[in-house]
Amino acid sequence: MKNQLATVKETLLMGPGPSSVHPTVYQALAKPTIGHLDPAFIAIMDEIKEFLQQLMQTGNRLTVPISGTGSAGMETCFVNLVEPGDDVLVLINGVFGMRMADVAGRLGANVDTLEFEWGTPVVPARVKEKLNEKTYALIAVVHAETSTGVCNPIDEVAELVKETSSLFLVDTVTSLGGIPVTVDAWQADAVYSGTQKCLSCPPGLAPISFSDKAVEKTMNRRNKVPNWYLDLTMIVNYWEGNTRAYHHTAPINMLYGIYESLYCVLSEGLDNVYSRHQKAHLALVEALESLGFEMLVAPEFRLPMLNSVKIPEGIDEAKIRMQLLQEHQIEIGAGLGPLAGKIWRIGVMGHTARMENIEQFTNALKSCL
Amino acid sequence: MKNQLATVKETLLMGPGPSSVHPTVYQALAKPTIGHLDPAFIAIMDEIKEFLQQLMQTGNRLTVPISGTGSAGMETCFVNLVEPGDDVLVLINGVFGMRMADVAGRLGANVDTLEFEWGTPVVPARVKEKLNEKTYALIAVVHAETSTGVCNPIDEVAELVKETSSLFLVDTVTSLGGIPVTVDAWQADAVYSGTQKCLSCPPGLAPISFSDKAVEKTMNRRNKVPNWYLDLTMIVNYWEGNTRAYHHTAPINMLYGIYESLYCVLSEGLDNVYSRHQKAHLALVEALESLGFEMLVAPEFRLPMLNSVKIPEGIDEAKIRMQLLQEHQIEIGAGLGPLAGKIWRIGVMGHTARMENIEQFTNALKSCL
Repeated sequence: MKNQLATVKETLLMGPGPSSVHPTVYQALAKPTIGHLDPAFIAIMDEIKEFLQQLMQTGNRLTVPISGTGSAGMETCFVNLVEPGDDVLVLINGVFGMRMADVAGRLGANVDTLEFEWGTPVVPARVKEKLNEKTYALIAVVHAETSTGVCNPIDEVAELVKETSSLFLVDTVTSLGGIPVTVDAWQADAVYSGTQKCLSCPPGLAPISFSDKAVEKTMNRRNKVPNWYLDLTMIVNYWEGNTRAYHHTAPINMLYGIYESLYCVLSEGLDNVYSRHQKAHLALVEALESLGFEMLVAPEFRLPMLNSVKIPEGIDEAKIRMQLLQEHQIEIGAGLGPLAGKIWRIGVMGHTARMENIEQFTNALKSCL
Repeated sequence: MKNQLATVKETLLMGPGPSSVHPTVYQALAKPTIGHLDPAFIAIMDEIKEFLQQLMQTGNRLTVPISGTGSAGMETCFVNLVEPGDDVLVLINGVFGMRMADVAGRLGANVDTLEFEWGTPVVPARVKEKLNEKTYALIAVVHAETSTGVCNPIDEVAELVKETSSLFLVDTVTSLGGIPVTVDAWQADAVYSGTQKCLSCPPGLAPISFSDKAVEKTMNRRNKVPNWYLDLTMIVNYWEGNTRAYHHTAPINMLYGIYESLYCVLSEGLDNVYSRHQKAHLALVEALESLGFEMLVAPEFRLPMLNSVKIPEGIDEAKIRMQLLQEHQIEIGAGLGPLAGKIWRIGVMGHTARMENIEQFTNALKSCL
């Protein structure tokens, strides 16, 4: 019987995620599994919460990793905070804004959307107009739109939402660990993220953080959360307090992984981590432009960790991606939705965000062109 | 900065799960992360499906691991198969039957329950009466009740359900890989399981299998599945077909883990695996009885992989559990619900189910008494 895992090759992951994993995170994943109620494990859980609070710059007590990938984080936020009939506003300028509207709609929310051209940011002035028209139970926006490489102006949107009674939900899947995520400064009520972007950890967990206001809304719902697995009113009893109540069996080894990845990020120091991303991003853009490529997003709105580059006429983009993967063991990402076939998405996330990787990629790309 | 992971000690996991992990599964978890659309990864996914089909004894095409722990598998089955107003019957003789009723109720089902004393099995004659009274959209039962150690007579219940039009849903979280799970013979329409019991893999994934009838129900719902993350109508497009459509980023390294664990089980051979569990179980029961302990469940209904033993008068059960963990690095489980404080739950699952472990545990227990 052939074991397919023998064919797995070390790959430089420069797509939209997963990104390359830190060597000590691999070691963490392979540590001995212990029980989910073992005091040694509870101590690890407690520190994961503290690490996440530091990284998210928040004092929110309910700051925990959810047992699923980033999209499970999105689902968790909406299913706990939204009740049927709630008015929800979703700001959309890419796939993940669209996904939020879909998630909220399935839960019975009345979803209004405000759409912006893909590759451009959310425009606060238009948000302001919309907020003057109607009161929303919840306003949702993506910080780092992974489908386009745009950084949305969360600071400015936050200032507008602060003047309302609305809950403020921010997707930080791709931003967390690559650019500052300042939950308390934003007065964000709920954020979610993933492990497989700037945290240098494989996909599998979704860190979330809920403000007191969000917790209060969750605890005072008219009906039970219509999702047992992601019901935070029960999950908190496993993550908090003196007697930890079993809810579902925690994904032990993935939690070792996120522990180690947060440990690495905080040991390096947040400022160092952010500037490493920025430096790698600028080097990548310079290399791409020197090869004649044009970036999709205007410089002032570019994310460092997700670089969308336009495909010049006459280039078979899928062929080059396949060539990069098969001949150079480098993965980059394709465009999604209206940008399919028109852009590549080149990730510079977490352990990938190092100058040697930019050089390796640039040389490989040159040889493919 | 102290790294808490350095405190993790190899532990013999003899609780209700997680169980001890196979050494090559740890190695698999630490293999290089590759992209979720990498052809090498798609090949691994395809083989995971085939392995699961063999283990579950089914030809069901939709047989995949869900990106969450066992309870996410439960949630997936109910949220895809149940619509508001559907009549659902749940057979309950422990925590996990209760959980199914809770999950179904949150989704708007009209839930009837049929309850049996904890520690005893579901009684087919009573199920038959109930099915004569009313027609159900779905009937749900737990194969191996982890909270009590009872094996429910799924063969007999299956024969009754076959005479109805109902969908038949079976929880195989603790049974899969320890005793035969025969999905097609049962004509089960949906089963779910977990990795952390008899598969010798850490918690984090939930294998499920849907029959054609269940797929048809899912694809013809009146409304979208009210859970984006677990919506099988989209998830199948990532797991099947020539063009794999991105849904959520798959938990790559956990999928390496389940690949390896299934590879181990199938390489050893199902009959060998089952008899290894049975042998370890009988040795454990003999050892416990020779020490004067009494089993909770009658011999003919005992699960090999989950052994409930009554706590004799005058024994401080929590103290002994703590002593086993701290002095011997052996974890056993406490009772749940009405059985809290009254039983221990001793797991003999997966890589734990080996004679040397029974001996190690027996010696440790003797020294604690």
